[in-house]
Amino acid sequence: MKKIIQIQFFILLFLGTTLSLCAQDHPSLILTKSGVAQIRADLGSVPLFDEILEETKKEIDAEIALGILVPVPKDMAGGYTHERHKRNFFVIQKAGNLYQITEDEKYAIYVRDMLLEYAELFPTLPLHPTNRSYATGKIFWQCLNDANWLVYTSQAYDCVYNFMSKKERELVEKDLFRPLADFLSEGNPQFFNRIHNHSTWGNAAVGMIGLVMNDKELVDRALYGLKMDINKKNERDNDGGLIRPDGQKKAGFLAQLDGSFSPDGYFTEGPYYLRYAIFPFLKFAKSLANNKPELGILEYRDKILEKAVYSLLYQTDYNGLFYPINDSQKGMSWNAREVITAVDLAYFHYGNDPMLLSVAEKQGVVALDEAGFSVAKGLADGLAKPMKQKSIAYKDGPDGTEGGIGILRTSTNPDNELCLVMKYSAQGMGHGHFDKLSYSLYDETGEVMQDYGAARWVNIDQKGGGRYLKENNTWAKQSIAHNTLVVNETSHYNGDIRIGEKYNPDLFYFNGKGNVQVLSAKSKNAYSDTKLHRTMVLVKDENFRHPILIDIFKANSEKNNQYDLPVWFQGHLLLTNFDYKKEATTLNTLGTGHGYQHLWKEAVGKAKDGTAHINWFSNGKFYSMISVVEPEDELIFARLGANDPEYNLRNDPSFIIRKKDKKEATFVSVIEPHGDYNWVTELSEQPFASVEKVSILHDDNQYTILQFSNKAGKEWTLMLANQDASETSQHKINVGDKVFEWIGVYQLK
Amino acid sequence: MKKIIQIQFFILLFLGTTLSLCAQDHPSLILTKSGVAQIRADLGSVPLFDEILEETKKEIDAEIALGILVPVPKDMAGGYTHERHKRNFFVIQKAGNLYQITEDEKYAIYVRDMLLEYAELFPTLPLHPTNRSYATGKIFWQCLNDANWLVYTSQAYDCVYNFMSKKERELVEKDLFRPLADFLSEGNPQFFNRIHNHSTWGNAAVGMIGLVMNDKELVDRALYGLKMDINKKNERDNDGGLIRPDGQKKAGFLAQLDGSFSPDGYFTEGPYYLRYAIFPFLKFAKSLANNKPELGILEYRDKILEKAVYSLLYQTDYNGLFYPINDSQKGMSWNAREVITAVDLAYFHYGNDPMLLSVAEKQGVVALDEAGFSVAKGLADGLAKPMKQKSIAYKDGPDGTEGGIGILRTSTNPDNELCLVMKYSAQGMGHGHFDKLSYSLYDETGEVMQDYGAARWVNIDQKGGGRYLKENNTWAKQSIAHNTLVVNETSHYNGDIRIGEKYNPDLFYFNGKGNVQVLSAKSKNAYSDTKLHRTMVLVKDENFRHPILIDIFKANSEKNNQYDLPVWFQGHLLLTNFDYKKEATTLNTLGTGHGYQHLWKEAVGKAKDGTAHINWFSNGKFYSMISVVEPEDELIFARLGANDPEYNLRNDPSFIIRKKDKKEATFVSVIEPHGDYNWVTELSEQPFASVEKVSILHDDNQYTILQFSNKAGKEWTLMLANQDASETSQHKINVGDKVFEWIGVYQLK
Repeated sequence: MKKIIQIQFFILLFLGTTLSLCAQDHPSLILTKSGVAQIRADLGSVPLFDEILEETKKEIDAEIALGILVPVPKDMAGGYTHERHKRNFFVIQKAGNLYQITEDEKYAIYVRDMLLEYAELFPTLPLHPTNRSYATGKIFWQCLNDANWLVYTSQAYDCVYNFMSKKERELVEKDLFRPLADFLSEGNPQFFNRIHNHSTWGNAAVGMIGLVMNDKELVDRALYGLKMDINKKNERDNDGGLIRPDGQKKAGFLAQLDGSFSPDGYFTEGPYYLRYAIFPFLKFAKSLANNKPELGILEYRDKILEKAVYSLLYQTDYNGLFYPINDSQKGMSWNAREVITAVDLAYFHYGNDPMLLSVAEKQGVVALDEAGFSVAKGLADGLAKPMKQKSIAYKDGPDGTEGGIGILRTSTNPDNELCLVMKYSAQGMGHGHFDKLSYSLYDETGEVMQDYGAARWVNIDQKGGGRYLKENNTWAKQSIAHNTLVVNETSHYNGDIRIGEKYNPDLFYFNGKGNVQVLSAKSKNAYSDTKLHRTMVLVKDENFRHPILIDIFKANSEKNNQYDLPVWFQGHLLLTNFDYKKEATTLNTLGTGHGYQHLWKEAVGKAKDGTAHINWFSNGKFYSMISVVEPEDELIFARLGANDPEYNLRNDPSFIIRKKDKKEATFVSVIEPHGDYNWVTELSEQPFASVEKVSILHDDNQYTILQFSNKAGKEWTLMLANQDASETSQHKINVGDKVFEWIGVYQLK
Repeated sequence: MKKIIQIQFFILLFLGTTLSLCAQDHPSLILTKSGVAQIRADLGSVPLFDEILEETKKEIDAEIALGILVPVPKDMAGGYTHERHKRNFFVIQKAGNLYQITEDEKYAIYVRDMLLEYAELFPTLPLHPTNRSYATGKIFWQCLNDANWLVYTSQAYDCVYNFMSKKERELVEKDLFRPLADFLSEGNPQFFNRIHNHSTWGNAAVGMIGLVMNDKELVDRALYGLKMDINKKNERDNDGGLIRPDGQKKAGFLAQLDGSFSPDGYFTEGPYYLRYAIFPFLKFAKSLANNKPELGILEYRDKILEKAVYSLLYQTDYNGLFYPINDSQKGMSWNAREVITAVDLAYFHYGNDPMLLSVAEKQGVVALDEAGFSVAKGLADGLAKPMKQKSIAYKDGPDGTEGGIGILRTSTNPDNELCLVMKYSAQGMGHGHFDKLSYSLYDETGEVMQDYGAARWVNIDQKGGGRYLKENNTWAKQSIAHNTLVVNETSHYNGDIRIGEKYNPDLFYFNGKGNVQVLSAKSKNAYSDTKLHRTMVLVKDENFRHPILIDIFKANSEKNNQYDLPVWFQGHLLLTNFDYKKEATTLNTLGTGHGYQHLWKEAVGKAKDGTAHINWFSNGKFYSMISVVEPEDELIFARLGANDPEYNLRNDPSFIIRKKDKKEATFVSVIEPHGDYNWVTELSEQPFASVEKVSILHDDNQYTILQFSNKAGKEWTLMLANQDASETSQHKINVGDKVFEWIGVYQLK
C-alpha cells in the first residue's frame, strides 16, 4: 500500500512540476488576469455588479477604518474572538478582490498587513483553549473553522501576491500558511482524511494555499489525501459520525467527489450541509480548473459538481428555503453566500442556464469575480427565466444504491404549490436522523407538516455556545420528532447510529409527472421485526382549490405492537370532528424515552365513526387532515417541551394516531390545504375541508384500495399495488361485488 | 322631555324641507354630479385611480357573471349566508360607483336587480333564526350587520336612483329600505340609541338611506336618535356593556360625535373599534356635508372627525398595525378598508396633508370617489411625505377627564423604532380589559411585549362562530393577561365591569419630546386598598444600538399583599443570569381564578445577587430585560394554555416577578433590544445586553433614584419625583453621602 501511494505521489509531483510553469501568474486562483481585465473594461455597464462593487467598497472601507483586529483566540462560536476571526476572513477575501478590480492599493495594504499580523500571531498559538472538538483548531475551536479561514485567505493572498515583497511572502508562507496547512492535514488526519464536509474544507484549504504558493506537496495532499493507515478505525467525531467507515480506501478531494455524492448529485448529509460543503468543492474546483486544467475537474464524474448545484437548488421549498432534514437549522435558503457562489460558478461554467439567473436575481448579489460578473451581465441583458423546481427522486449513496429522497411538487395556480419531501435515505452520517419513510410538506407559505430540524441555535452563544444541544440527540434525531411511524415507543434502528449506518430503506416506486404523482418506499430494517411501507400521492384536481396529499402507511409484524403515527402540523388547532379531553390542570409526559419524554400529553380522543378530521390554521391559511381510524385508536394531541430544563426546545404541537396491540396496521390520511384568511378584511375563504370521508375498501399485502369523497358528493378511488412496481402489470381484484382493475402501481379515478 | 324633543323635531322638519329642494340630485350621497364629472374628465391620467378602477371592474364583472345570490338568511358569521350577504353589500356599492364613473349600464342593471331581489326577500324575513344577539337582525344575526348592509347599499341606491324607474324605486323603498330603516331604529332602540359603535352604524344607515330617499323623518331620527325613554335602564349588551349608562341624555349621530370621542379624538373602545366605527362616522358625515352643508358636520366639535382619523393613524406600530388594546384582533392595520376611506376623506376635506398620501401609498388602494381621486392625484403629483407617527398622550372620556393612552416612540436610526403604549384609560365599555397601567412595546419587527388582544377568531366559524369566546372573559380581559401589576391574584376592579366603569387611573406626567421621554400614571381604584404608580422612560442614547425602556412600578398598601408583575415577552427564552428549576415531567396551573387558572407554571427561580436578567430571541432579534429583584422574589416562567378545553388560547410565554407579603413594592426593569441574527449568514450581532446592572439607590413616596450601568462601565442615574408633576420644581435629596439635585419630574444623567 505504502509503495503504491509513493508511486502515485511521484507521478503527480512530475505532472505538477510541468504545469507549475504556466500557473505562476497571480491572481490565478479564483480571479485570473484575463478575467480581471474584462471586468475592469466593463465597469459601469453592468448594474448589479457595479452595485455590489460599491457596497463592498463601503463595507471594506469601514473595516479598514476600524483597523486590523487579530485577537488571541479564546472564544467558542458566538464569542468575540471567534466572530472577529470569522469576520476577518470574509473581509480579507473581499479586500483582495477589490484590489484586483479597482487597483486601489489601500486594499492590498490592508490584506498584506493583516496577513503579517496573523503571521506574527500564528507561531505563538497552542491548540485553541476550548479543547472541545475531535479536531481542535488553533485560530478557532475546531479545525473546520481554521480551514474556512484558509480557503478565504488563500484567495486574498493570491490577489496581493505580486503586491507583497518576496520577503513578506516568505514570511507569511513560512510562519503562517505552510504550518497551518500542515496542521490541518498531517496534524489532524482524523479531520483531513474523512469522506465528510469537514474534510472537504480541509482539502480545499490545503490545496488552494498550495496552488497559490506553488507548493506541489500540499496540492497533492489535498487531492489525494494523507496515507490512509494513519487513521484509526472506528473513531467517531463529535456528532457520532464514523471518521473512517470500513471500506474507505481513498481520501482527499477526488475521493470526496467520489464519495460525498450519489451519482445524481445528492449529498448524504442533506441540503443544509451540502449548502455548506458546496463552497469548498466549487472554490477548489475552480482553482484547479484555472491552474490544473488537465485534471478536467469540472467534468469529473460526469459533471458531478453541476449535478450537486442543481440538487441543492431543487431541495428547496417555494420560497427557496432548504428542507431542514437531518441536523439542519431552519431559515437557511438559496440566499446563502455559498449558494450565491454556486449559482455564479454553475452559470459561468455549465452552459449559462437562464434559470440560474432568476435565482441570482432573488439573491440580489453576485460574487466579485468573473463568474459573478457573467451572471450580472446575463441579468442586465434580460436573459433570466423563472426557476422551476421539479419533482425528482434523488438516490443516496456513492453508488446510488442507498435509498434516497423523493420530492413531489405541483400547483393549481401560479401563486400556490404543495411540495412533499419523503425521506428513505441512508443514515446521513453523524448528522443523520432516525426518520425513515418520514415526510415533510410545504406550501407557498412555508411548512405545513414540519421537520423539526436540529436542536441547535447556530452561532447563538446563549444556547450552549451555538453547538448541538443534548436535546439534539434526545429529541431532534428521534423518530417521534418526525412525521413517521414509531413502533413501541422506540426509534428506528433503536436510535443507534451504528445500526442505522448499515441499512437504508428502498424506493419502491416514483412518478413525478402529471396530476397524480406518487412516491412509495419500504423499510425492512428500521425495526428488525416490523416491515414498513409508505406510499404518498400528490393530487391536483379541479375539485380542490389547492393540491391535496394522500398518505398510506402500512406496517406489519409477526408480533403485536403499538404503532404511533405523528404529524407535526404547523399552526393552531381549530376544530376536530371527534371528542377529545384536554388536560385542564395537570400535564404529564407522553413517555419516558426515545423522545417521548419531551412530549406533554395534552389531550386524548377517540373517533367513533371511523374518520378523524383535524382542522388547523397557520400563516393565514386553513388546513385539514382527514384520517381513517378505528374506534379504539387513540387520537393524541401532544406538545413539545417536557424534560427541557433550559428551554432549548420549541413548543410545537403534534397529532398522533395510536394503534395498540396490532400485528398489522394501515394508516390512511388525506391532507388538504383549503382556505384563506385575510387579517385586514377579516374574511375567511373556505375554512372547512372539501374532503369529507375517507375509507379503506380493501387492504392486504398485495393491494390497497381507498375511497374518498368531497362535500359535493364526488367520489374518488385510489388503487395501489403494494408489491409489483411495474408500470405495465395488470391488476384485478374483487371487493364484495365490485371489481377493481388497473394497470401499473396506482390508479386514481 | 317629550315636549322638547317634539319641538326640536319640528324645527328640523322645517329645515329639512327647505334643504330638500337642493339635495334631490343623484348621486349626492358620497359621489356628486360635479365630482363624477371631474373624475370622468381625468380618467387615464391618474395611474393609481385608473388601476383601482380596472381592478374593480374585473372584480364586479366576475360577480355579475356569477349571477345574483340572495339566500334566505340562516348562518352565523363565517357561514355561507352571512358571508354571501356581506359580499353583496361590498359588491353592490362598488357596482354603483362603477356605473357612475364608467356610465356602463350593466352595472346599474346589476345594482337594480339585486335591490329588487332583496325587496322581494325582505318582507318575508322573520328575525334571523340564530337569535343570539341583544339586537338580532334580519339579513344577518345582528342588527349591526344589517346596518353595515344598509350603509353600503344606500350608496349603491343613490348611484342608480335616476336609472331606476319610479315604480321600481317605490317598490324598493316601500318593501326594503323604509322597513329596514324602521327595524334598525324604532324596532331596536337598544341598538339604535346607544353611545356605541353599533349605534353609529345604525344612525348612519338610517340617515344615509333617509338622505337618498329624501325622507326627513329618517334623517332626523339618525341625527337626534329616538326618544330616550324608550330605553330600559341598566340593560347590557352581549359584551356586558351598558346600553344606556346613567347620565346619557342624548342619542343619535350628533350625540355619538359628542360622546364617542375625547376632545382630542381618542375613542374609548380603542383603535381596533375606532377603525370599525370611523367608517360610518365619515360616510354619514360626508353624506351630510353634501346634502346638509348648513349642519357644518365636518367642523363639528372643533373638527372632531379629523382628530379621530389622526388618532387612528397614530395608534399604530412601526408597520401600521393597530395596538390590540381591549378586545382587538391582532393583524388589523391601516390597510383596512375603513382606514382607506378615512385617509381619503381626511386628505380631501382636511387640508390635503401630504403625510396622509404616504399612508395611502402603503395602502395601495383608493376609494372610487372624489376623495380617493384626489389622493391618487396627489400621489401622481409626487406630493407624498413620510408618515411620522408621534409621541402623544391621548385623553379618554367625552370631557377628556377619564385617564387616557400614552404613546412614546423614538429611534436610533431610520430603520428601527421602539414604541411604548401605556394604558391608563377608562374601562372602554363592554370591550374594555382590566389592565390599568399596563403597557405594550413594539419595535420595527412587531411586538416586543405583547398585549394578548381578544380571545376571539373573527369570522372563523370553527371557533365559536367567530364570536367572543368564553376565554375572552376568563383570560383575555383579566389583569394577569397584560403587562401590569396583579395584587393577590385578583384582577383590577375585581374583574367587574360595573366597578371598572366608575373609575379610571390618571396621567401624572407626560413628556414626549427629546432623548428621554416619560409617561407616568397612577391608579388609586384598580384595588380599593392599594395605590399603583407606574413611570416609564424611553431613552435614546448613543451608547445603545437601539432605544431602551425603563419601567418603574410602585405599589403601596396598608396591608401585606402578593404582587405579581408579568411581562408577556414575545419570543423564545435563551438565557437567564439566575438559576431556575423547570418542571420536567408534570405541569400544574399557577392559580385558580382571574386568569391564573389558564397558566401553566413552567419554572421558578430566584436571583441571589439582586439583579435578574432574562435574554430572549424573536423575529431575528435579541432582547433582554434586567430587573432589580430581592433574593426572596419568585421569578416565574409561565405559559398560557391550561383550562382551555378547546384550544382557544395561544401558548404564549410570560415571565412574572412575584413579591410576597409586602405592603410596599417597587419593581424596576430595563428592557433593551440589542442584537440581531441573520438566518442566512447565521451570524449574531450583539446577542447580549449592554446593560449590566440596575439598582435602586433611593425609593420612597416622594422620590425614586435609580442607577444602571453598561458593560463598558458607563453609569446612568435616573431621578424621579413621584408626587410633584411640575416641570420647574427643584428637588434635592441626600442618599448616604451623595446629594441628588434636579429640576422637574425627572432627570437622567
